[in-house]
Amino acid sequence: MLFDDGLELLDEQQCFELIDGPAVGRVGVSMGALPVILPVNFRLVGRDVLFRTAEGTKLRAALDNAIIAFEVDSYDEHTHTGWSVLLVGRASEITSRADLATADALDLEPWAGDGNRDHWVRLRPEFVSGRRIAAA
Amino acid sequence: MLFDDGLELLDEQQCFELIDGPAVGRVGVSMGALPVILPVNFRLVGRDVLFRTAEGTKLRAALDNAIIAFEVDSYDEHTHTGWSVLLVGRASEITSRADLATADALDLEPWAGDGNRDHWVRLRPEFVSGRRIAAA
Repeated sequence: MLFDDGLELLDEQQCFELIDGPAVGRVGVSMGALPVILPVNFRLVGRDVLFRTAEGTKLRAALDNAIIAFEVDSYDEHTHTGWSVLLVGRASEITSRADLATADALDLEPWAGDGNRDHWVRLRPEFVSGRRIAAA
Repeated sequence: MLFDDGLELLDEQQCFELIDGPAVGRVGVSMGALPVILPVNFRLVGRDVLFRTAEGTKLRAALDNAIIAFEVDSYDEHTHTGWSVLLVGRASEITSRADLATADALDLEPWAGDGNRDHWVRLRPEFVSGRRIAAA
């Protein structure tokens, strides 16, 4: 096992196995030159992360062909153990009919009911890293 | 209550009350022109967020007087409810003797035991926003 600054480094396979569980991840992107972090519910399709955005939102504009960060983690506040995985890559809106059909078949319902999140964004990660805090 | 895209908007007081509970938040910052999101355990002191970093790390360099994002959230995967709070502002290392004494008195131990995280970073938020997903 490799360690970095007290944290166990995870390999890519471990990273993708871990993030294929939680429902919520966090997107990091610049909006108006300021960094923001926003939670999204998502699905993993192969190595791609898919999530929904709504027409006309600042998020949708900010994601357009941008390099974004996507983070998933899980922590136990009692044992002080946990892990985090970071993906970085280009986001793009899904527009092809075949890919939209695949995305719609994921049955990923936005938790916030009212927002009309009918646009799909795909993150194709180019950089994958993960760290785990094991029990002391 | 105000709503944005199906999410209830929280006021500043609600935001600070909510984030004064979880042990882990996430820092969003640029490293080498790429966005990253990294979990940190933190404490709230007034409106400031304090967390530790280690000497010589890329994170420490990236945070130096940078505008960063800091996010805390909590979700229930069964009820599909939850909240998230986003703070944006300038990060700076705590250097004054009085502030360091205050920080050390917080008794905030890094969960990853080995890393020598003996530098304190303070985020002074200039932008505060929060959203909540209520039960449908």
